[in-house]
Amino acid sequence: MTPDEFRKRGVQLIEYIARYMETVQDRPVLSKTDPGDTAAMLPEHPPTEPGGDAEWNRILEDLDRIIQPGLTHWQHPGFYGYFPANASGPAILGELLSAGLGVQGMLWRTSPACTEIETRMLDWMAEACELPADFRSTSDNGGGVIQGTASESTLIALVAARRRVQRLGLEGEPVVYASTQAHSSVIKAAMIAGVARGQRDNERVRLIETDDAHAMRADILAVAIERDIKAGRAPVFVCSTVGTTASTAVDPLGEIARAARAVGFKGWLHADGAHSGAAAVCPEHRWMLSGLDLYDSYCFNPHKQLLTNFDCDLFWTSDRSTLVDALSILPEYLRNAETESGRVIDYRDWQVPLGRRFRALKLWFVVRHYGIEGLRAHIRHATALASALEARIAEDPRLELCAPRPFNLVCFRPRPLPGESFADTDARTALLLERLNASGEVFLTHAALPAGGGEPDRIVIRAAIGGTATRTEHVQRLWELIDAETDRLDDNGPLA
Amino acid sequence: MTPDEFRKRGVQLIEYIARYMETVQDRPVLSKTDPGDTAAMLPEHPPTEPGGDAEWNRILEDLDRIIQPGLTHWQHPGFYGYFPANASGPAILGELLSAGLGVQGMLWRTSPACTEIETRMLDWMAEACELPADFRSTSDNGGGVIQGTASESTLIALVAARRRVQRLGLEGEPVVYASTQAHSSVIKAAMIAGVARGQRDNERVRLIETDDAHAMRADILAVAIERDIKAGRAPVFVCSTVGTTASTAVDPLGEIARAARAVGFKGWLHADGAHSGAAAVCPEHRWMLSGLDLYDSYCFNPHKQLLTNFDCDLFWTSDRSTLVDALSILPEYLRNAETESGRVIDYRDWQVPLGRRFRALKLWFVVRHYGIEGLRAHIRHATALASALEARIAEDPRLELCAPRPFNLVCFRPRPLPGESFADTDARTALLLERLNASGEVFLTHAALPAGGGEPDRIVIRAAIGGTATRTEHVQRLWELIDAETDRLDDNGPLA
Repeated sequence: MTPDEFRKRGVQLIEYIARYMETVQDRPVLSKTDPGDTAAMLPEHPPTEPGGDAEWNRILEDLDRIIQPGLTHWQHPGFYGYFPANASGPAILGELLSAGLGVQGMLWRTSPACTEIETRMLDWMAEACELPADFRSTSDNGGGVIQGTASESTLIALVAARRRVQRLGLEGEPVVYASTQAHSSVIKAAMIAGVARGQRDNERVRLIETDDAHAMRADILAVAIERDIKAGRAPVFVCSTVGTTASTAVDPLGEIARAARAVGFKGWLHADGAHSGAAAVCPEHRWMLSGLDLYDSYCFNPHKQLLTNFDCDLFWTSDRSTLVDALSILPEYLRNAETESGRVIDYRDWQVPLGRRFRALKLWFVVRHYGIEGLRAHIRHATALASALEARIAEDPRLELCAPRPFNLVCFRPRPLPGESFADTDARTALLLERLNASGEVFLTHAALPAGGGEPDRIVIRAAIGGTATRTEHVQRLWELIDAETDRLDDNGPLA
Repeated sequence: MTPDEFRKRGVQLIEYIARYMETVQDRPVLSKTDPGDTAAMLPEHPPTEPGGDAEWNRILEDLDRIIQPGLTHWQHPGFYGYFPANASGPAILGELLSAGLGVQGMLWRTSPACTEIETRMLDWMAEACELPADFRSTSDNGGGVIQGTASESTLIALVAARRRVQRLGLEGEPVVYASTQAHSSVIKAAMIAGVARGQRDNERVRLIETDDAHAMRADILAVAIERDIKAGRAPVFVCSTVGTTASTAVDPLGEIARAARAVGFKGWLHADGAHSGAAAVCPEHRWMLSGLDLYDSYCFNPHKQLLTNFDCDLFWTSDRSTLVDALSILPEYLRNAETESGRVIDYRDWQVPLGRRFRALKLWFVVRHYGIEGLRAHIRHATALASALEARIAEDPRLELCAPRPFNLVCFRPRPLPGESFADTDARTALLLERLNASGEVFLTHAALPAGGGEPDRIVIRAAIGGTATRTEHVQRLWELIDAETDRLDDNGPLA
């Protein structure tokens, strides 16, 4: 493709994306296709001959014919499922430039700017979130790096943890700790790292009970660690969660760290702020990071709430030497004078893959475009919308809130009817969710939260607010739909 | 950023990239910046206030002022280092669209088109490379997925391997096998997976000697496996390389598989075709995949030679159930009807991360634009250029070729002078490389190759051809530089 063809088709795609931004709200949020529908529209065999310029007209048609019906629109203002993955113009342009330059940042030498801008972006964000000083690149043994996802951050932190314990000469089977509400990626990391022998290896991955607010119980953690040490096991890794996936509960970082150390924990403390950590750009939300100075690593994802396209997970550590030791291997073909000088960072040693894109560009563009105040305004806007929705639910006798709402996520369900079984309330909750999503105007997802008292977990509906385009009127509309569909539920009476 | 601002800035960036394509050849390939030069141009603190539209003019200026000097230009026609990471217009546009749509493909449900186009692309490429039928999604237990890098493919294959051996009830310490020439990511995967206890854990990662062509010796592998089984260890994983990093040597896939199975190997056979596998789009290169039907998984990277922007590694397996079993964990918040129906693929269970971009778009665009014949033409062009350079070196008495050249990589060095020590030849090789790179017109890297006979490895210069913009005249110029700098070497006489 010549530069001139690229100009022509590039301008068309920019226009296509701009139109998509303008019209996404008119599309059904959740794709209505059935399994196989998209595949049925694709040729079975690849084209043999070059399609060239003429093919591009067909490609542009196929975007509407094949792609659009098969999309669940994460950028729709009515997308409240999972957590937001909010894109923005500056971030899209950063990703475009990264692709256009096509450089590799595996070593400092393979594009110095790729490494040095990334290091500075991590320092900027550490400052913006007021992270501990020993997470800065200017500290003795700290620094930050962009990972693809928080799952990868958890994995590399676990691998570093194991290396630390190995260096200390601690014997015994390794054990990992997180709360019952921790993200599934903790167990997955333990499976990949070979610590867990399967999805339910309760001997190697201990899921610690939570309190009424769904935060980890530090006292129970301490008992578990102490018991494991006495039994000759090696506690290697504690993963605290700063904003759980089900309900954005915040584990008490300081309390956990102190309790673990008090019973002789010598492993690695990681704090996973994947979604909620972004809110720490606002001083009023920084309570969640209290105690982080006792941790070995921390991460959060600008690709969730901070207007930066996926993938962009920020990972910091105060012990980069152990991390690098756990992940570094230098074959002859990667040796170079700058690496051997020890004066540069080679980020390949901070991650699972060798190759890496110039992801710092999109974060650089986002921060320069919005400024830290712009990012704060986005967080505050989402929090205010969530607070307003929460208030509506709180005052409605047909519904109940199911968890504290520290940030932008509201968990709710229909209030149990007198004498209604848990299963029936769950069924009504699922029905309400299904009908809300069937509207096409909104998309929400569910989670399970501990009910306490030995009861089974309860199903709750999650409304995660924070899309780039989500405004007051959209959340107002969400409430209208909840209101109307809850009425419809009640018309049905209790389910048979 | 409003859609109209996005239009304006998007068109500017498209123009910037088009100009970059037109002018990259006039820039020095390897960045001349010193450590800290880029960082010194960046503000120490993040901006507080939104920069908005005015800031974009400064951003565009900074692309030339800060970014460009700090780039090593992987898209320069004189880039012959490492392996190519060739970008192209269609791939850049696919990445742009992926960012613009901003969808997540972690579950089928979270954007069905993202999953179904990816599955079809893997089937297309399996057909284009004539891969075994049991790697197709239409087979009983096979299928393909896009990973970020071959390193991740090696890791998930190893994790699947361990699960298989676990299911078989085999006891003993796990052992991994690859050749001494295998990519460093094999050892790194073993470190992450907890199989290797460090970079040089020769008990757990056995690096098998190679033959004169630098390919794995199947007979030595068989002896190693047999010995480990007898010693009560559990051989879990053999990684064969289809085109090594140092010299594109091809391990004999069929011979290795048969030799391993003959001595009772019950683990997983993975073939890593990261770079050279792309050449299998050409029938004349498919000899390298002979025996692949005996393997459990295979990968290669369109992001190296197939005009598709990084990251795009294609991974296929004939045993997806074991892979998914090794990587799957289904928390309540990800449950949905389609997943439970078993009728869809959820690619999150085929990879390390949970989230995933719509990477299939760029491959779809590339294949439609170029057609399989266009991709073949690119591979053949690079092979022909490499062959021509090889011929020049072969007929020059001052230089010697250091390895067979099956594809697009030429390994050479100055011929040892009579009586010259290994170290002195290595020093002259390094000097020649340094002077070639100092020209700014080309960039090459080095590797070490076994010399045989108990001698230390020899340093060789690698010329990896295959950039999107690399033409006959560029390789001609490379030869002129090699010619002139070799003369200069000889003027110096043997190094003191």
